Amino acid sequence: MALIVQKFGGTSVGSIERIKNVAQRVARARAAGDEVVVVASAMSGETNRLLALGAQITKHPNERELDALVATGEQVSVALLAIALESIGVPARSFLGHQVRLRTDSGFTKARIKGLDADVLLGTIRDGRVPIVAGFQGVDDAGNVTTLGRGGSDTTAVAIAAALGQGVACEIYTDVEGVYTADPNVCKNAKKVGRISYEEMLELASLGAKVLQIRSVELAMKYAVPVHVRSSFSDAPGTWVVGEEASLESVVVAGVTSDKNEAKVTIRDVPDQPGRAASLFEALADARISVDMIIQNPSATAGTNKGTTDMTFTVPKGDVDKAREIAKKLFESQGIDVDGDVVKVSIVGLGMRSHAGVAAKMFRILADEGINIQAISTSEIKVSCLIHSKYHELAVRALHDGFGLGD
Amino acid sequence: MALIVQKFGGTSVGSIERIKNVAQRVARARAAGDEVVVVASAMSGETNRLLALGAQITKHPNERELDALVATGEQVSVALLAIALESIGVPARSFLGHQVRLRTDSGFTKARIKGLDADVLLGTIRDGRVPIVAGFQGVDDAGNVTTLGRGGSDTTAVAIAAALGQGVACEIYTDVEGVYTADPNVCKNAKKVGRISYEEMLELASLGAKVLQIRSVELAMKYAVPVHVRSSFSDAPGTWVVGEEASLESVVVAGVTSDKNEAKVTIRDVPDQPGRAASLFEALADARISVDMIIQNPSATAGTNKGTTDMTFTVPKGDVDKAREIAKKLFESQGIDVDGDVVKVSIVGLGMRSHAGVAAKMFRILADEGINIQAISTSEIKVSCLIHSKYHELAVRALHDGFGLGD
Repeated sequence: MALIVQKFGGTSVGSIERIKNVAQRVARARAAGDEVVVVASAMSGETNRLLALGAQITKHPNERELDALVATGEQVSVALLAIALESIGVPARSFLGHQVRLRTDSGFTKARIKGLDADVLLGTIRDGRVPIVAGFQGVDDAGNVTTLGRGGSDTTAVAIAAALGQGVACEIYTDVEGVYTADPNVCKNAKKVGRISYEEMLELASLGAKVLQIRSVELAMKYAVPVHVRSSFSDAPGTWVVGEEASLESVVVAGVTSDKNEAKVTIRDVPDQPGRAASLFEALADARISVDMIIQNPSATAGTNKGTTDMTFTVPKGDVDKAREIAKKLFESQGIDVDGDVVKVSIVGLGMRSHAGVAAKMFRILADEGINIQAISTSEIKVSCLIHSKYHELAVRALHDGFGLGD
Repeated sequence: MALIVQKFGGTSVGSIERIKNVAQRVARARAAGDEVVVVASAMSGETNRLLALGAQITKHPNERELDALVATGEQVSVALLAIALESIGVPARSFLGHQVRLRTDSGFTKARIKGLDADVLLGTIRDGRVPIVAGFQGVDDAGNVTTLGRGGSDTTAVAIAAALGQGVACEIYTDVEGVYTADPNVCKNAKKVGRISYEEMLELASLGAKVLQIRSVELAMKYAVPVHVRSSFSDAPGTWVVGEEASLESVVVAGVTSDKNEAKVTIRDVPDQPGRAASLFEALADARISVDMIIQNPSATAGTNKGTTDMTFTVPKGDVDKAREIAKKLFESQGIDVDGDVVKVSIVGLGMRSHAGVAAKMFRILADEGINIQAISTSEIKVSCLIHSKYHELAVRALHDGFGLGD
């Protein structure tokens, strides 16, 4: 008998039939002796439908009002889920952000959680009821409705698990069976990972494996919340995201991911003078454009101040026009090239910290397939290579097989 | 320059185009120097869509959750309206029930307003913003979301006008031009009424003229809130609902209405003993069935206890099966007839109080058309007759012309 948080995503509550299935699953967990707090997202498509209503009025809707608008999506889900549970004899009660005092800052459309009132939930459980909390939403100190950004319900669920007490697990029900060693659509022999560390999951999440919102993983790591990512359409165990010490399989490479959402910007013949790079990246940071990879080709006449160099960096595709404008202002005479036909492939694994030669092996595998590496970036537990997008699937499969990740 | 409450019903905010039109109307009122508090209903069809979702799960959804579910309809409207106003340069702010502390009792699906925090609204106006309040919803003392029943947004609007101070008018924008002397679909020459008293409006509202929720009229009368019912699709003045002293035209008959929503139940050969009628109507009251008209035919053998009588009464059509069951239990041996082919036609007017012969004139008009009267009920300012439903339109037109109400 345990206290667990079960979070159901948009596809899991995407229809009345599915909402009834979720109610049955919660009822089974309860019948098995567990106490459950449920967190639900909006029915799939609902958030987009609401955003489209706002967009029909104006391109830039007021963000406070946008949050009040889209927060209704989760309100509908939790009310329906409570109705479904009550209808099968399980006492339940829906809670909105203001009703569990889930306080956030006032960063509308991307607010951050400051705290919540776990006593309301614990009291509801003591009364024999299943609390069903609307994900994604909170209230700021002035009582305004806020939302946490896309995928924010994951963060709500982890925050609730953390607030309920040490060791309370958070089950994230979604439309995939867990975290895989690579995208199963690309690698037919990709395997489900049984356990993965928060650190690895963070790298995977930020690299585009859209299983968990990145902030929910950060929060889970901070409060040591065990997270179980699993399918709402089966009873098969999924992937546990846990602390490093609990992650038994400290494999060298846990998975391969790829990200097609970056574009490469190259500024040619930049005067090779101190401070030119700094001024560029300061200007990009001021414009809130996050730069990922940076390569500066060595100057042809190194050691003098008269040479020139090519500067290359990557930014999210959506920011590429803004980045080009900024670069143009700073380097008026130079040519600026933008290349969107790139993909970043990465290998991630805790074991890299203690294993030498992992990066070298990655470069070799790509070279053996005739794939040119355009840029490289690394972290303690990750190596990423930027390559031409036409090699995307080939590179992922070669790395997946080369590191022995397949079945 | 005045402070006014403008309430927009579901059809007035039924599409993005119409929401933009409402924003323009609010902006015009503001440009003309008025301060406006807006109250909005859910977009037309939305409440029914939400109720249908709940009904797909179970026939009898939990009422607390039903309220949380349907309250989203108004939340969407007010957020969209605020977005629309902001997009044309008018600062605006949406408010939900909990944000204006619109407190109600805990009678889910039909809660009654206990009070609200007008200071939040007045402060918002002082800050130069238009407050846009979600109609129909409130919170009880425990913070649960409640709703006020169908048409509850009218009541929200009147309650806000009352709370904002003496003499604050409440404009109810709807899809009709005001209150008419009869249903214009039945009487081609029906006239819009310029002014009508609260009392007359109460009788008209309860008789089926679905222009205003009856509780909103009661509330307006209690706090002397001037109510202006008008069309959101034109600038023509509508009907003012005001106190008797302000209602200049104290006409004998203000209007003719009809109600097809009653059925007649007749219990034949009831033993004419004291207490039999009482036990029946007590049982009906216990079952929360509201009985409207009652006729007891004089016993054939009056003065003895051995005679029998026929008892006839009317109830809402939706309650007729329940009423028949109750009657069956109490009067096992008697025959019970139910007749749904009836309509109640009524004339309403403050002037009746001081004019004799109005009822007699009504009976004469119906008789002249060959219409048999099956039951009669009267109040100080109303006379109602139950007739066969086939005479519905004929009776309304005859009374409308007979009392000189047409153009």
